[in-house]
Amino acid sequence: MQSINIKNKLSLFSDHWNPRIVGELNGQQVKLAKLKGEFVWHKHENEDELFYVLKGKLKMEFRDRTVEVAENEFIIVPRGVEHKPVAEEEVSLMLFEPAGTLNTGNVLNELTKNDLDKL
Amino acid sequence: MQSINIKNKLSLFSDHWNPRIVGELNGQQVKLAKLKGEFVWHKHENEDELFYVLKGKLKMEFRDRTVEVAENEFIIVPRGVEHKPVAEEEVSLMLFEPAGTLNTGNVLNELTKNDLDKL
Repeated sequence: MQSINIKNKLSLFSDHWNPRIVGELNGQQVKLAKLKGEFVWHKHENEDELFYVLKGKLKMEFRDRTVEVAENEFIIVPRGVEHKPVAEEEVSLMLFEPAGTLNTGNVLNELTKNDLDKL
Repeated sequence: MQSINIKNKLSLFSDHWNPRIVGELNGQQVKLAKLKGEFVWHKHENEDELFYVLKGKLKMEFRDRTVEVAENEFIIVPRGVEHKPVAEEEVSLMLFEPAGTLNTGNVLNELTKNDLDKL
């Protein structure tokens, strides 16, 4: 049991769309990620996802609207809902989701990350 | 689906040791709480708990040592481990834990909160 410093962990990587695992509890994982640009439309059949914005401004696009998520705000995307994260400028965020949740959900492409590093 | 602003939610209450629910996903809850002073020694038989410090400095006492958790740091307390949160000055924090986790765990006393408000 130790304290985990978010800023220290964020300083350990700089690539985008490549989440790192920084904690696990109750079958869930805490991840950190940096985003820039547009991700791919996808959904998760069985997992709800929480996106907590640590730095920057995230636009979460849904098929019928877009929700802006500012620093120190979070959004929960329920399972089954198509979404596309967009970061016009770089965004740092914390994710909270079930262990093994695939970043691209039901879509497999060059952005899919199968084995996430632990920091 | 909407963005949840942590600071706005924190401004809606001022009492200590009385967590509010601000999100739910995958059978887990996101809670906000303000702490001041010493809590009670307790443990949770079946739930791991994550404490993320938003403001202030938390001391998490274990039977064999104390871990300091500063702003923008978190600590995960595994199920079964006795702990006592201590806040010498007021601490604001975010909790991630399974829905229904009782704040005082295996101890029932005047600090126990059975029905948490949702904000």
